[in-house]
Amino acid sequence: MEPCTQRHQYRENLDSETTSGKCDGYLQANMITLPAEYAFEFLLFCQRNPKPCPVVDVLEAGQVTPRIADADIRTDLPKYRIYKNGELEREVLDLKDVWQDDFVTFLLGCSFTFERALVEKGISLLHQEMNRVVPMYQTTIPCEDAGRFNGEMVVSMRAIKKEELDETIRITSKFPLAHGAPIHVGHPSEIGIENIENPDYGEFTPFDEEERIPVFWACGVTPQYVGLNVKPEMMVTHAPGHMLITDQKE
Amino acid sequence: MEPCTQRHQYRENLDSETTSGKCDGYLQANMITLPAEYAFEFLLFCQRNPKPCPVVDVLEAGQVTPRIADADIRTDLPKYRIYKNGELEREVLDLKDVWQDDFVTFLLGCSFTFERALVEKGISLLHQEMNRVVPMYQTTIPCEDAGRFNGEMVVSMRAIKKEELDETIRITSKFPLAHGAPIHVGHPSEIGIENIENPDYGEFTPFDEEERIPVFWACGVTPQYVGLNVKPEMMVTHAPGHMLITDQKE
Repeated sequence: MEPCTQRHQYRENLDSETTSGKCDGYLQANMITLPAEYAFEFLLFCQRNPKPCPVVDVLEAGQVTPRIADADIRTDLPKYRIYKNGELEREVLDLKDVWQDDFVTFLLGCSFTFERALVEKGISLLHQEMNRVVPMYQTTIPCEDAGRFNGEMVVSMRAIKKEELDETIRITSKFPLAHGAPIHVGHPSEIGIENIENPDYGEFTPFDEEERIPVFWACGVTPQYVGLNVKPEMMVTHAPGHMLITDQKE
Repeated sequence: MEPCTQRHQYRENLDSETTSGKCDGYLQANMITLPAEYAFEFLLFCQRNPKPCPVVDVLEAGQVTPRIADADIRTDLPKYRIYKNGELEREVLDLKDVWQDDFVTFLLGCSFTFERALVEKGISLLHQEMNRVVPMYQTTIPCEDAGRFNGEMVVSMRAIKKEELDETIRITSKFPLAHGAPIHVGHPSEIGIENIENPDYGEFTPFDEEERIPVFWACGVTPQYVGLNVKPEMMVTHAPGHMLITDQKE
C-alpha cells in the first residue's frame, strides 16, 4: 500500500495496528508534540543528543503538515498517547479533541530504517524472526542537558551473531538519522543494565551467548522518557510502534 | 599564544584586532546572540540550513560560558556589533552595558577551519596570499524558512586552480561544521551573482580565468543577514573577522 493510502486508513480510523512492516521502503518517524514554551529547549536537547534524537522534521506552532509527508499530523498516525504533567492519561486514535494552536511537533528517525538495511544484507535479527518487539533498557549513560531536559539514555538491544558484528556496525553507521552506529557492544552492566533478561520496555528474546553478542543502540524512547521528566502540562507522542509513515524513501 | 591567554587580551581590551591567524589549530566560531523569544526559530533555521549555519555550541538564557571555551561570551571576543531593530547601531569591545538575562547565544563554525586544511595540503588560496578578506555575495539560493527567519544564502568565493578543484572539494567536504563541500562551482550568474568583481562583503581579488575557477561555499554571514531581516529589537554578533577563539582543536 502507498503511504497516502495507508495514512488514509488511519485517518478514517479503519486501521489502528502497528506500522511495523507497513509501506516497505518508506521512512517511518517517531513523533513528540509539546507546547511552544518547551520547543527551544527540546530542539536543543535533540541537537545535543543526535544519536537518540535524530531530528528529521519539525512542525512549527500552527503547522499540522510535515515537510516529509503530505499528512495531517493530528489524524494520520494509527494511535497516539496523551501525557499530562508527566503521566500517561490515555491512548487515542486522533488528536482532534486535544490539539492546541501552540503545539510544536518533532519527528525523529527510527530504527525500523536500519533494521531493514540489516535484514536486506542477511544479518539475523532474532526479535524479528520471533516476531517480538525489540527489548529496551534505561541506562546510566547521561544525555547532554538542555534547559529543563535531562536524563539518561534509553537503548535498544539486538543480539547479533559474532561473525556479523563488524558488518552490523558498518551498515548502521551509515544511518545517522536512524540512531547510527551502536553506542555499546557486550557487557550490559557497563552501561547500568543489571539484568538483560528484564528490559524496561519491549520483550527479551533468549539467545545463545556463545553464538551472539548483545549490541546496544541509542533509542528513540529516550526523548519521551526525558520529556516526561520535565512533567509538561501536555505532551503527545505516537503510541509505541505506531509511527508516522512518511512519503520519503529510506 | 594559548586561547585563554589570547582571550584575556580581549577581555582586558589590550587587543581588538582580527582573530585571523591567531591561536593556530584552535577552532574559531561565529557568534550570534538573540533574545530568548527568537531562540527556537533561529535554532530551527540553523538545523534546516546546516551548510551556512553549522551549530557548534548554544548558550541558553542565563549562560555566559560556552561548552567549547572557558570564556565569558560578553567580554572575550575582540569586537562585537550591536544591532537594534535590524540596523547596525555600533561596534563595542565588550557587552557589559547591553547584556540581557534572556540572551541566547549561538556559536557557528567558520571557514577559517577548512582554509587552514586546504593550505596545509598545498592548495593555493589567492585572498590569503594577497592578505585580503574573502569576497562574499548575496545569492538567489533560498534558505529553508523557519518561523520568521527566511532569506537567501550568502556565499564566500575562492578562485581555485582547476587542477586542485577535486582535492578542494574532497577536503572541505570533511568539515561539515565549517560549511562543508562547496555549494556551487563556476557560473556565478546561475546563483544570482551578476558581477563577481563586486562582492557584497569582503574584497575581490582578480584571478586568471584560464587557470582558476570560482568556487562558492555557504557563508556564516547568512544567519546574520537573515537575522536582520527579522528586525529583532536586539541582536549582537561578533564583528566580522573578530571571532570567538575556542579551546577546541580543529
